[in-house]
Amino acid sequence: MTITSLENTKIKYWLKLKQKKYRDLNNEYLIEGEHLVEEAVKNKIIKELIIIENYTNNYNLEATYVTEEIMKKLSFLDTPSPIMALCIKKQSKEIIGNKILLLDNIQDPGNLGTIIRSSKAFNIDTLVLSLDTVDLYNSKVLRSTQGIYNYLNIVKMDLNEAIEIIRKKKIPLYGTNVINGVNVKSLNKDSKKSYALLMGNEGQGLNKQLQSLCDINIYIPMNKDVESLNVAIATSILLYELNGE
Amino acid sequence: MTITSLENTKIKYWLKLKQKKYRDLNNEYLIEGEHLVEEAVKNKIIKELIIIENYTNNYNLEATYVTEEIMKKLSFLDTPSPIMALCIKKQSKEIIGNKILLLDNIQDPGNLGTIIRSSKAFNIDTLVLSLDTVDLYNSKVLRSTQGIYNYLNIVKMDLNEAIEIIRKKKIPLYGTNVINGVNVKSLNKDSKKSYALLMGNEGQGLNKQLQSLCDINIYIPMNKDVESLNVAIATSILLYELNGE
Repeated sequence: MTITSLENTKIKYWLKLKQKKYRDLNNEYLIEGEHLVEEAVKNKIIKELIIIENYTNNYNLEATYVTEEIMKKLSFLDTPSPIMALCIKKQSKEIIGNKILLLDNIQDPGNLGTIIRSSKAFNIDTLVLSLDTVDLYNSKVLRSTQGIYNYLNIVKMDLNEAIEIIRKKKIPLYGTNVINGVNVKSLNKDSKKSYALLMGNEGQGLNKQLQSLCDINIYIPMNKDVESLNVAIATSILLYELNGE
Repeated sequence: MTITSLENTKIKYWLKLKQKKYRDLNNEYLIEGEHLVEEAVKNKIIKELIIIENYTNNYNLEATYVTEEIMKKLSFLDTPSPIMALCIKKQSKEIIGNKILLLDNIQDPGNLGTIIRSSKAFNIDTLVLSLDTVDLYNSKVLRSTQGIYNYLNIVKMDLNEAIEIIRKKKIPLYGTNVINGVNVKSLNKDSKKSYALLMGNEGQGLNKQLQSLCDINIYIPMNKDVESLNVAIATSILLYELNGE
């Protein structure tokens, strides 16, 4: 059976999940596209598949079929995928490991998504998102992660609280600042074994209060004509270097 | 005097410049926002400022004033800036220097913009864009560059033609591939003095024909759970590493 009406209760609920407040309220979210669905199947987070009529259900999971018109409304894309899924949030509350990345107020969904990919690539144990960072379950964020968000311990928490936990674990806190900063290329092996790296917002950078809590500041050596790198780029280069021998 | 009609000849022309074909035809483009305008003023590429009525012209340049309604139509943003400018393209045709980056069919404007910032940051001499790469004068690309496009030699050219020129200059061509690739961290000083790095499209990677022309392949060591990094991230990490001692 195919749902054909936008007035259907399920459809009305799924449409609401396009807004953060309903995702927060219900601890559920939508994903779109074969690749994200495949990763979600592997990670057993799917409550229900949403498939366009006449498209094949390749998974051993319950599916609801919808018309093309409804899929267009549910989709976040100009050209909707034939498959979406309703997923259950599996958000962690615990800071684990000794390689931590903390993000303060990152706003661009593409930036957060690519930082998540880079965090896993360079062996971060826990990613901490400040309360005002763009929502992890925003469709653009999820797409940019290419499904990697399933493989990373991601915590949403007040950063002052997170830093207190990190201090108790005796993990040094690294900020980024050229003034009084250390060239990241000159860090020794020991500095790369255990660290919490704190990165700031796209426009404003790191806020002063958080900056003052850092044990050391590091910087990326670059041409003086360039004021700053994109925050996802800077974060990834630092993680790449900290991941090294 | 303030232009109030969307039927005005100037306005009709500027609106056309939102499309690539008219930018190509006329060698002119629009920029938006104080920061981009400031950089354009420094680089003497502005033909005319476009300012919202009642806003101050802080530059010693000719300006046309428009209503808020017209600015909204000209703008690429949800919240338009009070200042825009009509600029003249200053596109280079020559591959100079011995640190070259070649981009094959990059499609995301944000990716191209941040790669331009990173290229300047890590001392690239010439950036070569394939003919099918997203337009440099696309508003999102220009915004992501934060004005840095003014400070980099950027050439648009068939990549096979560009590679022929690079071969004649005896600059080695680096591709990216894990199979038969060299860990970028293990490159010696000499390999970093002179190189042309070739990067592929977001989804498909580098095309096979171009890949076959590379002298060596390099790769970024990372966690095996991650298939690939975002292309702007991967490019920036390689440029960062190649810029090192």
